[in-house]
Amino acid sequence: MKKLNFKVLKTDIIHKGRVFDLKIDEIIYDSGNKGFRETAVHPGGAVVLPVKENGDIIFVNQFRFPHDQFVLELPAGKLDFNEDPFICAKRELTEETGYSSEKITKLGAIFTTPGFSNEILHIYLAKELIEGKHNREEGEFGMEIVSLSLKEAEEKIKSGEIVDAKTICGILYYKLSLDN
Amino acid sequence: MKKLNFKVLKTDIIHKGRVFDLKIDEIIYDSGNKGFRETAVHPGGAVVLPVKENGDIIFVNQFRFPHDQFVLELPAGKLDFNEDPFICAKRELTEETGYSSEKITKLGAIFTTPGFSNEILHIYLAKELIEGKHNREEGEFGMEIVSLSLKEAEEKIKSGEIVDAKTICGILYYKLSLDN
Repeated sequence: MKKLNFKVLKTDIIHKGRVFDLKIDEIIYDSGNKGFRETAVHPGGAVVLPVKENGDIIFVNQFRFPHDQFVLELPAGKLDFNEDPFICAKRELTEETGYSSEKITKLGAIFTTPGFSNEILHIYLAKELIEGKHNREEGEFGMEIVSLSLKEAEEKIKSGEIVDAKTICGILYYKLSLDN
Repeated sequence: MKKLNFKVLKTDIIHKGRVFDLKIDEIIYDSGNKGFRETAVHPGGAVVLPVKENGDIIFVNQFRFPHDQFVLELPAGKLDFNEDPFICAKRELTEETGYSSEKITKLGAIFTTPGFSNEILHIYLAKELIEGKHNREEGEFGMEIVSLSLKEAEEKIKSGEIVDAKTICGILYYKLSLDN
């Protein structure tokens, strides 16, 4: 680890949230200058790339409050306290799409916004899907399933119809896994 | 636009930050249930994928406070108030790497964390790079340039050495642009 040029003087959690806490650190540089670091402290989450037998990938189209619009994404959700991301992935797959799978493997993990949040999302591939009934929360009203081939998904990334970062990362991980 | 099942009752900015503001919306569902939505309100930013004449891509390795570690990323930065993302991309490229370019084109835009932030990052490709001197901020201490071929970058994504979401998205946009 490289030597850093600052020390933390004081840490405050100024808001305990439902999804994230807001932490403010006061820092002092070796120069004597002071600064602040704001962090959205997030428990992390799991993302699932479910692939059907015909090769289609299952996405969900869901309303996202911060952007005030529907966003086409891979199924995903926040970790419960101390939850294993793998368990979270299984749960979210079924809750959001109704599908379940006993063939879930890890593709990778991403830092979504390292500049201002510690959120880590764990990305999984789910195969041999079994159809069932979804169990969405009230806040997931209007969510719809969209099945796309890898090629169609890539076209929607190029055209700007898919803009969700975890989804685009999931697609690249999946492509790289197919190269092996 | 689909009909939603809630209305916003009240909006409060509970923290005005250096990087983001924390906004809390109180909502009421059609069912009568109430809830809250926390949003990290972020001005957005620009990301640059700089490609050298030999095909190598330029990354920066920089300390990220929320993760308490160095993270290998594409050069990027936050938009100044009302700044055009293209101008921001040009500025950040030079500030962080010293390189400048008159051949900057848009690759795409991403929602980094649509669950809890409205951050949008605009991703650009920079070619025909001209070497110069970087101009890093005090908070960018220890930042180092790392040049990797596309193949090496993909290997580092697979191995987990590259985990930054905007960087992984940038690599996929770049790959898709090469397919044309």
